[in-house]
Amino acid sequence: MTTPYLRARRAELLRDYRDGLLHDVAPFWLRHGLDREHGGILTALGRRGELLDTDKSVWFQGRAGWTYATLYATVERRPEWLAAALSCVRFLRDHCAAPDGKLYFSVTREGRPLRMRRYVFSESFAAIAYAAVHRATGEAEWRDRALAAFATYLRHEREPGRIAPKVDPATRPARGLAPVMILLVTAQDLRDCLGDAVVGGRTLTDWAALACDEIVGLFCKPELRAVLEQVGPGGEVYDHFDGRLLNPGHAIEAAWFLLREARRRGDRGLARTALDMLDWMWERGWDREHGGLLYFVDLLGKPVQEYWHFMKFWWPHNEAIIATLMAHAHSGEERYAAMHRAVHDWAHAHFPDREHGEWFGYLDREGRVTTELKGNLWKGPFHLPRQQLVCWNVLEGRY
Amino acid sequence: MTTPYLRARRAELLRDYRDGLLHDVAPFWLRHGLDREHGGILTALGRRGELLDTDKSVWFQGRAGWTYATLYATVERRPEWLAAALSCVRFLRDHCAAPDGKLYFSVTREGRPLRMRRYVFSESFAAIAYAAVHRATGEAEWRDRALAAFATYLRHEREPGRIAPKVDPATRPARGLAPVMILLVTAQDLRDCLGDAVVGGRTLTDWAALACDEIVGLFCKPELRAVLEQVGPGGEVYDHFDGRLLNPGHAIEAAWFLLREARRRGDRGLARTALDMLDWMWERGWDREHGGLLYFVDLLGKPVQEYWHFMKFWWPHNEAIIATLMAHAHSGEERYAAMHRAVHDWAHAHFPDREHGEWFGYLDREGRVTTELKGNLWKGPFHLPRQQLVCWNVLEGRY
Repeated sequence: MTTPYLRARRAELLRDYRDGLLHDVAPFWLRHGLDREHGGILTALGRRGELLDTDKSVWFQGRAGWTYATLYATVERRPEWLAAALSCVRFLRDHCAAPDGKLYFSVTREGRPLRMRRYVFSESFAAIAYAAVHRATGEAEWRDRALAAFATYLRHEREPGRIAPKVDPATRPARGLAPVMILLVTAQDLRDCLGDAVVGGRTLTDWAALACDEIVGLFCKPELRAVLEQVGPGGEVYDHFDGRLLNPGHAIEAAWFLLREARRRGDRGLARTALDMLDWMWERGWDREHGGLLYFVDLLGKPVQEYWHFMKFWWPHNEAIIATLMAHAHSGEERYAAMHRAVHDWAHAHFPDREHGEWFGYLDREGRVTTELKGNLWKGPFHLPRQQLVCWNVLEGRY
Repeated sequence: MTTPYLRARRAELLRDYRDGLLHDVAPFWLRHGLDREHGGILTALGRRGELLDTDKSVWFQGRAGWTYATLYATVERRPEWLAAALSCVRFLRDHCAAPDGKLYFSVTREGRPLRMRRYVFSESFAAIAYAAVHRATGEAEWRDRALAAFATYLRHEREPGRIAPKVDPATRPARGLAPVMILLVTAQDLRDCLGDAVVGGRTLTDWAALACDEIVGLFCKPELRAVLEQVGPGGEVYDHFDGRLLNPGHAIEAAWFLLREARRRGDRGLARTALDMLDWMWERGWDREHGGLLYFVDLLGKPVQEYWHFMKFWWPHNEAIIATLMAHAHSGEERYAAMHRAVHDWAHAHFPDREHGEWFGYLDREGRVTTELKGNLWKGPFHLPRQQLVCWNVLEGRY
């Protein structure tokens, strides 16, 4: 729906979202990050886009592939976007898999293996890249690869014991929010590109439903007004540092994944839960003193173990800008407009580099830039351009 | 030697070191951390010493055991110090080893396994604890356990392939400073307690010499005026984030380990290298704008990948207080007095909790406390009481 808030800010928000995406963020990574020699994308860039490290993030071969293929398929058929997406997925296909098929976490510029990690987020990001390239090109190879990568993700994440847990499960069995959220958004993104395919014995819609059920059933605690990051196998709250650790930006990201699913199936109860998640985690994460979202807080207000908990990172703000805008557009409720104004304005006052483009990633609590990095193994063309694209779509009623 | 600086500040420094140790830091952890129910020590404490998490750090069973046994053996035969040390080493012995003998990283309060990690620092800290308890008690069991734990450390750290490296060694073979530094200080501490025993075919003095040779030969770069944290197997500088990463407090800690060894063997060349290491890393790490030591800096002044690089942690300041005091007392050079004054005064102006005792651990760049934590898996009775004890000894000419 449109609202007085959306009407009043529409032009300004389109400038930040649509124009920021098309004229700043998408070109920044094409200009500075695309590896025209070896293929794929380099993300370790300094303020002016200068290359700081030639090692490649495997996550970002998938994430950038998704971003540019989605721009090509849903915004405009610009050849440079398709070329970038193809460069990333071909680099993934040709250089990022170990002999057993599992994807590395990082490789050299030429594609030689550096790090393998236990978990399978490289696979989930590869799956959405392959799927988006299939949507862009119609080529069957990328559809097959997308489904295979998602099947690998499912095999590792859903079969107990496939990934050795950090903490001995005989002493303290645990479930984490992150893999369930990634299950949800990967199933959603694949469905957008491939239709409601069947993988691992379930449709993508059924995988999304399972993930929603687990998020609501295990991690959402209405009585505590919190979304937990780690619980016991039955949703038990562990009164330890890790069990009390809240990541407001992460839970707010989960909220808009759920809201998107709730809108698709017309589930008003699930939509209300998604809005509640946003409400709870906004209350806990918004820094009333300095503005912005704190990275970590403790469920009981105790000190957290992570010593950089007070920092303001770019991506929780991207996720909160999406979630608050979508919550307001969906519900028309004024308080989500107020939240959106707060987080949009704080983020745009502190993160963008007005001189050299794109956003800084890491601010201190007061909002001062602590490093000139534009990218690294974790920051590249994903959270910010996704936020710009999704928010532009929300403003146009496409969500 | 004594110097005008040391004479002028002696009373004040003794108050901070000797009295701080005896009347504040040592009692703080006995009062709040010692687990009178299950044995060992709890380090996850809040500002007032309240327990935030019952999980136990295996590192700290060894580190606290070393601290209290060393106090008992070298300061005064206080029964509560021996009891604390014995509680820690018995907890280590009875609850912290996996079936294959390798030590965990963390266990529950009762001693059930939580996390196993690849590396063997739990073993090195256990070794110094057992050795110090042997010195305190004369009991043969603890000598045997100390040598066995050190042998385990050596087996994992010195035999290639025993610990799977993070980065594929076929692509980028690497050596880290940390395990070599720990080899040096563990050999030194064991020798203090057990005499010059033979382990793994070498005397402790020979292990210390080997570690000194590797630190000087591989990690010290006079032409760059830097001590690196990670190099290639022949000391190659890797022009990547990890290869350029400097940890000034860590390298300054290595400097005083080397100076101690140089003084023992009357090696003026090694002593000069140790002082050079301090000079280089002080230049790189001291924050001329806000004071204190930055946690990470880049060899070439580029942005570092670790986003909390600008923070001021307690332990680099402990190590720099030792290194600068020892460098000044050893050499009589004025510039080390100036460095000592700078780091001692900045640290004592910002870290101590004047109301509830002990030190805060984590400050922002301006020196403001970012968390009220007094301890966690990495902070407990070790760096601060060791600094107080070593500096007290330096003031008394015992070093």
